[in-house]
Amino acid sequence: MARLNTFHLPTDQWPARVGDVVRLTGPEARHMGTILRTEKAQTVRLFDGQGRDGLFSVRDIAKNRAELEALELAEHPAPAGGLTLAIGWGKSKRRDYLLEKVVELQGRGVIFWQAIRSQGALPEDPKATWNEKFIQAAKQCGVVRLPELDTVSGGVDGLLAMAGEFDRCYLAWEAEEATTPLSPGMLSKGRTLVVIGPEGGFDPVEADKLIHAGFGPVTLGPSILRWETAAVYCLSLAMFGAQDRS
Amino acid sequence: MARLNTFHLPTDQWPARVGDVVRLTGPEARHMGTILRTEKAQTVRLFDGQGRDGLFSVRDIAKNRAELEALELAEHPAPAGGLTLAIGWGKSKRRDYLLEKVVELQGRGVIFWQAIRSQGALPEDPKATWNEKFIQAAKQCGVVRLPELDTVSGGVDGLLAMAGEFDRCYLAWEAEEATTPLSPGMLSKGRTLVVIGPEGGFDPVEADKLIHAGFGPVTLGPSILRWETAAVYCLSLAMFGAQDRS
Repeated sequence: MARLNTFHLPTDQWPARVGDVVRLTGPEARHMGTILRTEKAQTVRLFDGQGRDGLFSVRDIAKNRAELEALELAEHPAPAGGLTLAIGWGKSKRRDYLLEKVVELQGRGVIFWQAIRSQGALPEDPKATWNEKFIQAAKQCGVVRLPELDTVSGGVDGLLAMAGEFDRCYLAWEAEEATTPLSPGMLSKGRTLVVIGPEGGFDPVEADKLIHAGFGPVTLGPSILRWETAAVYCLSLAMFGAQDRS
Repeated sequence: MARLNTFHLPTDQWPARVGDVVRLTGPEARHMGTILRTEKAQTVRLFDGQGRDGLFSVRDIAKNRAELEALELAEHPAPAGGLTLAIGWGKSKRRDYLLEKVVELQGRGVIFWQAIRSQGALPEDPKATWNEKFIQAAKQCGVVRLPELDTVSGGVDGLLAMAGEFDRCYLAWEAEEATTPLSPGMLSKGRTLVVIGPEGGFDPVEADKLIHAGFGPVTLGPSILRWETAAVYCLSLAMFGAQDRS
């Protein structure tokens, strides 16, 4: 049902059963009414970004609000595994693109970390605009679950403190010492964390610390990839790994 | 030597031997002199985009021209295989991004084709600005060979006429009938062509024709990928396939 027009309804407003009526307000209601000119009795798809989606019938619609009745409701189980990327913070205008691709390529999560070569200071908490990017991307590509979003302070030490949450941890290292290619097989089972440096790369001290702590150094290939391309490359291998049955 | 500042010198001006002197003019010379403030006696890297690169010493430099002496010259053999993407034409502002990623992820070539659902008319010949995008991307990522760039008229029939140049041809099809995932193994040997639809997807007539002609229908996964994400996904699997020794 992904080809129907899709709108986001927050989890705390999600209906308990078919026949329940919900209200859409704010930008999502404007998108439905003003931009897509949705009409009474049309069927649309709503999702909550936490694994729930459903078909709804428009009962009433105005410029800034809509009333919808649940016709069909589905709940999709959380995947056991998936790829989380820990990405060195940067002020790059390529960040929006990166956030969009994490959703499309079904990443499990994104953690921004403050690297020695990061440009600018990492915000203490994820920004609402980042989550908004996720929502818009999910509406487009039909994904039911938004990636987890986090920021971690304390540089590499902050990352090491999180390592226990993952089954495997890797470091995408641009140095010649990294000769093992990251592979879909490394990303296909359980929870995996891949750490990517900021634009400008890891400081040697950071790479050393991670490798000593057991993060496996891997290469992404012979090309010098841009920040967001490194992320998209990892996500592509993981999405392939998740569907590979060979 | 990829971390040195890199500039593009066209093939017809490439020096025959070490000690020869070449001249850089136009935007590349301005980039060298005005933006990067390169000075006399500095060493830089030049490449021709056709597999040649080398180290050069700056003998003389002004705002719009530079004179350089060849210190070391290398010629990299053309790869036997590689992935060529045939992408349904679109006027999307995401095209520049796509061209950049083809270089970074070491695609062999890009062919734009006029699909039934293409928005706008495909230019008869590749535009100089597209090649310029390739050059700028290659300067950044250190790739020595620019992808081949072509446009093909006649819709799907134009593509079928080119199929003989490839060892294997696939169709990245968003329909449920496509259940075989595109895999790195399909892309790791010989010359492979993957056809991607325009934004809006293939018309069923186009998919039918390609499949009947022997193009293998493959899925890129469960997500509805944007135009340029589909391309980047295929390129990522191909770049992994080319380095996989397992």
